[in-house]
Amino acid sequence: MADKPINIGILGFGNVGVGTFRTLEENKRSIALKIGRPLKVKLVADLDWKRPRPPAVALSVKQKTRNPLAVVDDPEIQIVVECIGGLRPAEELILRALRNGKNVVTSNKELIAKRGHKLLQEADKRKLDICFEGAVCGGIPIIRSLKESLTGNHISRMMGIVNGTTNYILTRMTQEGSNFKDALADAQAKGCAEPDPTSDIEGFDAAYKLAILAAIAFESRVKVAEIYREGISGVGAADITYARQLGYVIKLLAIGVNSSDGLELRVQPVFLTKEHPLTSVNGVFNAVWVQGSSVGEVMFYGQGAGPLPTGSAVVGDIIEVARNIQHHATGRLPCTCFSDKRIKKIEEVETKYYIRIGVLDRPGVLGKIATVFGAEGVSLASVIQSQASGEEAEIVWITHRVMEKKIRAALARMRRLREVRKINSWMRVED
Amino acid sequence: MADKPINIGILGFGNVGVGTFRTLEENKRSIALKIGRPLKVKLVADLDWKRPRPPAVALSVKQKTRNPLAVVDDPEIQIVVECIGGLRPAEELILRALRNGKNVVTSNKELIAKRGHKLLQEADKRKLDICFEGAVCGGIPIIRSLKESLTGNHISRMMGIVNGTTNYILTRMTQEGSNFKDALADAQAKGCAEPDPTSDIEGFDAAYKLAILAAIAFESRVKVAEIYREGISGVGAADITYARQLGYVIKLLAIGVNSSDGLELRVQPVFLTKEHPLTSVNGVFNAVWVQGSSVGEVMFYGQGAGPLPTGSAVVGDIIEVARNIQHHATGRLPCTCFSDKRIKKIEEVETKYYIRIGVLDRPGVLGKIATVFGAEGVSLASVIQSQASGEEAEIVWITHRVMEKKIRAALARMRRLREVRKINSWMRVED
Repeated sequence: MADKPINIGILGFGNVGVGTFRTLEENKRSIALKIGRPLKVKLVADLDWKRPRPPAVALSVKQKTRNPLAVVDDPEIQIVVECIGGLRPAEELILRALRNGKNVVTSNKELIAKRGHKLLQEADKRKLDICFEGAVCGGIPIIRSLKESLTGNHISRMMGIVNGTTNYILTRMTQEGSNFKDALADAQAKGCAEPDPTSDIEGFDAAYKLAILAAIAFESRVKVAEIYREGISGVGAADITYARQLGYVIKLLAIGVNSSDGLELRVQPVFLTKEHPLTSVNGVFNAVWVQGSSVGEVMFYGQGAGPLPTGSAVVGDIIEVARNIQHHATGRLPCTCFSDKRIKKIEEVETKYYIRIGVLDRPGVLGKIATVFGAEGVSLASVIQSQASGEEAEIVWITHRVMEKKIRAALARMRRLREVRKINSWMRVED
Repeated sequence: MADKPINIGILGFGNVGVGTFRTLEENKRSIALKIGRPLKVKLVADLDWKRPRPPAVALSVKQKTRNPLAVVDDPEIQIVVECIGGLRPAEELILRALRNGKNVVTSNKELIAKRGHKLLQEADKRKLDICFEGAVCGGIPIIRSLKESLTGNHISRMMGIVNGTTNYILTRMTQEGSNFKDALADAQAKGCAEPDPTSDIEGFDAAYKLAILAAIAFESRVKVAEIYREGISGVGAADITYARQLGYVIKLLAIGVNSSDGLELRVQPVFLTKEHPLTSVNGVFNAVWVQGSSVGEVMFYGQGAGPLPTGSAVVGDIIEVARNIQHHATGRLPCTCFSDKRIKKIEEVETKYYIRIGVLDRPGVLGKIATVFGAEGVSLASVIQSQASGEEAEIVWITHRVMEKKIRAALARMRRLREVRKINSWMRVED
């Protein structure tokens, strides 16, 4: 009886499904010892059994199906592992699995970000587990750490490099001086960026991950649509150069701040001070930095994507669920979104700013711009005026901390000045 | 019934005990929601109730005792939190608590390193929890990550900066060029080093932590006495300078390697390549870098000590145990030391080496030394000969990978050369 295996069904046998299967197979013996019973992959559903897969991945005919319902309706399967991705048909399949009394493991970030609360409630009602460590930053154990190890803390602030593609591009731009277009083409050639890179480049992927992290860290429901989001396509080589000159590195960060008047949630390229540990996270690596009331600063670093890293997280979750099954304790970690905190508008955010302005090279321009800042209540920390060429010059400002609506008001007024050719770029500055 | 609190008893009300109590008090409401029941600190035992404690820490007369047995024998207490430290009387008290059917949380690294296996067996027998996240690197969630999130991986290699005092001293030496004695005195003045710094400086503290980490990561019992240990008192300002010149940073690392012919376990100052993420871990910060079969590289970073960071870990464990109590699932994560792997002798370790030799400045010396290396099978990667002053010169070598017994044999032969004044220092090099 103790040796009767716990049956697993896998939905989707692409990269993550294969990575999960391989990780389960390679560590079979040790996993069985840890759970007290072996795990068995009983059934795998995929629409396409002809596409090439690594040679080590061998399934018997009995283990393969094209029908996902065969998995979620199988009375012998206790854990359904969803590796399809996207909302449809993943959501319906998971709901059906839960209603059939099955525990669920998924690495589907879009689904958890958008429908997580509903799915977790559904699982809670039935005292079932739904685990999703793989949904954020591949194998980096950030979800469990927030839910369990750091759960005695009030988390006040969180900043993450949660998208490998954009971090790779920004790293190339920083280390080699390449421009955005070339760095993106290089990332695509290397397979670090999709042929259609929009979801990564424009910060959608990062926003999903931030929604999940913030919901757990701040114990509040979070709507993805309320997250302020900017991508990196507007970051220029000149910005990278100014950042270096001023002691910063440009990173696309997912930022969450938990303050008494609401949550600040934003995905955007920022000037991050060189002293910050996140600035040493380069290439496709991910990291999440967390500030807790007792723990102080902690940071989690690793590969944020890939079949095996994500497989590592999925298998960690499967073992967790299996241990709970073995001890009749599924559902022991219910949803912890105890509140519906207000999400601040971007105009309410208070930070420092970097502003790069193209101007006509005439006497008094710097003074005029400074006067506009002053009139809008923006206090200035430093300024660089670049060498003029012909008629044009560039002025770069770093402000003190100020509310974003004041910056926006100042920029709107500046755009109307005859001497201002263009607001070339502006970004938030984080210390 | 659902609101009946889970009673906690605390042994020892020094830094960690107070940090734990404060963390529990400050987050009382959210913790109760997470568990489904409130926690109550029923009784705290300490020998000295007169020493000063932070004003926010208020216990009623009924909560205080000088008798630790009053805690471990109290039939209403379900979780005993041991914050005394050291082997005695902590070990007997924990054993007695377990035998009385109580779950245990401790941050006592020496105890877990030396007696962990016995205590875990005792807990397993009774289906009780014994948790010790706080024993390694304060609030950094490394134990739970290894035991749960990464448990689907075969961990092949682990390197950690697990002692804040020595990392602070080496950081000062690296950043400011100070020598060991001054940096130590500075650390003592700042309270980052004990008046008797032996346990930190000589690597005992790091060895305890390595024993615990290796036992979990490599699923094997580990005897502290079998860990090879070197401290940092021999690291000179010259070594720091050469390291920088050659592209390395000197760090005191706790290293564990899991190979088919045994475990390599060593605590020692090493030359670590600048490319490694651990080299950006400075000051009192700690970090553990782990290489897993599926997850690849992951790193955990944070404050490795202090009442509140350790309190964060202890409270995370208390909540974990309370959730298990609530779900009748204590003992769900038993001891995972499934084997007794052989620990390799230091002579069997294979790595690269840095060797700094003081010589008489005569023609042919470099060749003579190189010949000795060659005769012992040590292949050389690079050499720097320093400017001679008067009769003396210094030669610095970096070798290719080689077994340590060959290095030791070469050094022994070199010491007999008339031209060699002294082997000034030598260290392992990690890429």
